[in-house]
Amino acid sequence: MITKIKGVTMTEKIAVLGAGSWGSMLAYILHQNGNDVHLYARNPEQVKEFNTQHTNSHYLKDFTFPESMKATDSLKDALDGVDDVLFIVPSQATRSVAKVVNQILAKKRIKPYIIHGSKGLEKGTFDRISTVLEEEINPENRKTVSVISGPSQAEGVAKHDPTLITVASEDMRSAEHFQKLFMNDYFRVYTNNDIIGVEFGGALKNIIALGAGTLYGLEYGDNAKAALITRGVAEISRLGVSFGANPLTFTGLSGMGDVIVTATSKDSRNWRAGYQLGKGKKLDEIVSDMGMVIEGIATSEAAYDLAKTRGVEMPITNAIHSVLNNEETVKDAITKLMTREGRSEIG
Amino acid sequence: MITKIKGVTMTEKIAVLGAGSWGSMLAYILHQNGNDVHLYARNPEQVKEFNTQHTNSHYLKDFTFPESMKATDSLKDALDGVDDVLFIVPSQATRSVAKVVNQILAKKRIKPYIIHGSKGLEKGTFDRISTVLEEEINPENRKTVSVISGPSQAEGVAKHDPTLITVASEDMRSAEHFQKLFMNDYFRVYTNNDIIGVEFGGALKNIIALGAGTLYGLEYGDNAKAALITRGVAEISRLGVSFGANPLTFTGLSGMGDVIVTATSKDSRNWRAGYQLGKGKKLDEIVSDMGMVIEGIATSEAAYDLAKTRGVEMPITNAIHSVLNNEETVKDAITKLMTREGRSEIG
Repeated sequence: MITKIKGVTMTEKIAVLGAGSWGSMLAYILHQNGNDVHLYARNPEQVKEFNTQHTNSHYLKDFTFPESMKATDSLKDALDGVDDVLFIVPSQATRSVAKVVNQILAKKRIKPYIIHGSKGLEKGTFDRISTVLEEEINPENRKTVSVISGPSQAEGVAKHDPTLITVASEDMRSAEHFQKLFMNDYFRVYTNNDIIGVEFGGALKNIIALGAGTLYGLEYGDNAKAALITRGVAEISRLGVSFGANPLTFTGLSGMGDVIVTATSKDSRNWRAGYQLGKGKKLDEIVSDMGMVIEGIATSEAAYDLAKTRGVEMPITNAIHSVLNNEETVKDAITKLMTREGRSEIG
Repeated sequence: MITKIKGVTMTEKIAVLGAGSWGSMLAYILHQNGNDVHLYARNPEQVKEFNTQHTNSHYLKDFTFPESMKATDSLKDALDGVDDVLFIVPSQATRSVAKVVNQILAKKRIKPYIIHGSKGLEKGTFDRISTVLEEEINPENRKTVSVISGPSQAEGVAKHDPTLITVASEDMRSAEHFQKLFMNDYFRVYTNNDIIGVEFGGALKNIIALGAGTLYGLEYGDNAKAALITRGVAEISRLGVSFGANPLTFTGLSGMGDVIVTATSKDSRNWRAGYQLGKGKKLDEIVSDMGMVIEGIATSEAAYDLAKTRGVEMPITNAIHSVLNNEETVKDAITKLMTREGRSEIG
C-alpha cells in the first residue's frame, strides 16, 4: 500500500503511449496512485501477454503488474476520453506517433495535457522532443507540453527504491499538475520551469556515459571519473544555456542526477560501449557485437555539430567525437584535453 | 617526464606545511613542476624516513618520492625565503600552526602568498579555514589567501591518474598564480573567485558521503544514490549561498566533483561509517570500532546548527542529524523525506 502525500488528491484518465520498461513502469506508478491508465503498445503479442499474464517479460524480468492494469494495441481506444497523454515512445518515432495522435484527438474533440519521457534529440533537425510534439499536435487539440526526466532505472522503481524525478514545463501549473499525478511515497516529483535544460540534460548525458566507460576501460581511477562527469556536465550546460536553458537545471535531477546513474552504472549500454573502446576495440565491431543502438554515438555527433554552429566550447564532446571517428587515439585525446591552457571554472 | 603546459612558466620557493598523504602528494607535484619545495612535518621520525628512504609509509603505501625532495621538522627552516606557503594540516590544527607561522614570517620580513588544502570548518566558530588563516596571519606578513580543493585522491595522483582541481581566491590573480605553480599534464587546475563556495563544498561533502553509505547499507539502489547526491548538493549549495557563495560553484570540481568521489568510494571513512549505520549498527560502536575521526558526524552537527540559525531548509542534513542522535530510525527518516509536500527543483 502506498502512502498518500499531502497535496496529491487528483486522479485522472491517462493514456500511456509506449510500453517499454520505462513506459510500463510509469503506467504502473500512475495506476498505483489511483488513476485510470490506458497503456498502449504497438505489438499485439505484448498486449496479449500483459492482459493475460500481467507481465512485460521482454522489457522487465521478474515483475508482475496488478491484474487491474490493462493494455491495448488500439491507439484510438487508448486515447478515449483522456485528460492526459504520456508519450514514451523512442525519440525518433515520436513525430510519426504524434501525427496520428493529433488526428485522433481532433476527431474526439478532447484537449488533454501532454507529457513525454523520451531522452534524445530528433535526428537531422536536432529538435527537442517537446518541440516535435508542439509541432505535430495542434494547439486546439492539446494543453501545454511537459517532460518527465531524472535518475530513474525502471528496475529500481519496480522495487520501490526511493526515486526522485523532475517534471518540467514552461507553464508551472502544468508541471504541478503532473507532480500531483505521479508523486507517491517511493516516487518523489520536483517541478522545474526550464524544459529546455531538462531535455538537453536527458539527451546529452549518454555522451558522458560513453566517456566514463572509456576511462574505466583504460583503467583510470576515481579522480578521472569525477573530473569527466563534472566537466562533462559543465559543457553540456554551456550548450543548453546557448539555447536559453538555466545553468542550475544541469545541477539537478535531470542533469547531474541522471549522469551519475548513467555514467557509474555498468548496466548502461553507452557505458559498456565506452568500456570496450577503452579496451582498444574498434567502434564498428562494438556496434555490431552489441546489436543495439548506442545512443551516445549519434548524440555526440549532434552535440558536436550544434557546438560548432553555435560557437560553444565543448572539449570533451569534441574529444569523444574525434575518437569515435578514428581521428585520434583515446590516449592522445586525453593528453590534448589535459594540456590545454588553464581556464576559469565558471563561465 | 611531465609535459609543460602553455602558460606554466613560473617556479618558486614554496613551504608545504603538513606531510600527510595529500600534503606530501601536493609537494611532489610542485617539485615535479620544478619548484623549490620545503616540506614540513612535525614528526622527526617521519622526516627521517622521508629524507633517507624517500617514503611516507604511514600515509602512502608503495610510493617512492624523488631523492631530490627533502623534508624538515623545523617550521623556521621550512619558511626560509619562501614565496608561497601551503597549509595542509588538519582543519582543527590550522589556527595554532598559523599563529606560529605569523610570528616567523614577521621576523623573516617576508610576505608570501598563502594557500590551504584542508577540508572542514573550525569547531565552535564554524569558520572557514581561509578565515582562520586571515585572522591569524597579519596582512603585513602575507599576500591573499587561496584554497585548493576538488576530487583528488592522493593514491590516484600518485599514479598520474588525470586529476582536475580548483584553486579559489577572492583575488583571481592569486588563483591564477597557484594555477601556474600546480598545473601539469596529469594535474589540471581551474580557477574560481568564489572561495566561500569552494570551502563550503569541501567541508560539507562528508555529510552526503555518510548518507550514501547508509543507503548502500540498507541495500537501496542507484536511483536513491543519485537522488541523495543531487538533492544533498542542492541543500549544501543553499547553505553556502546564504553566506554569499555562487550556486554554480557547487556544480563544480570542489562541489559535485568531490561529492562523486567521496560518496561513491568505499575507501571513504564517512561512507564506511554510513554503511554500518545502514546495517543497523549503533553510532558509538561504529566510532569506537573505527578508532578514527568520522568528519561527517561533526560536520552534520555544524550544518544542522548553521541551517537552523540562518533559516535554510536542509532536509537531508536534518534527517542524518536526527538518525545520528537516535531521534529516529533510518527507515522513518527516509519515509519522512519522501512524503514531504511537493517542491520546485530550483530555488
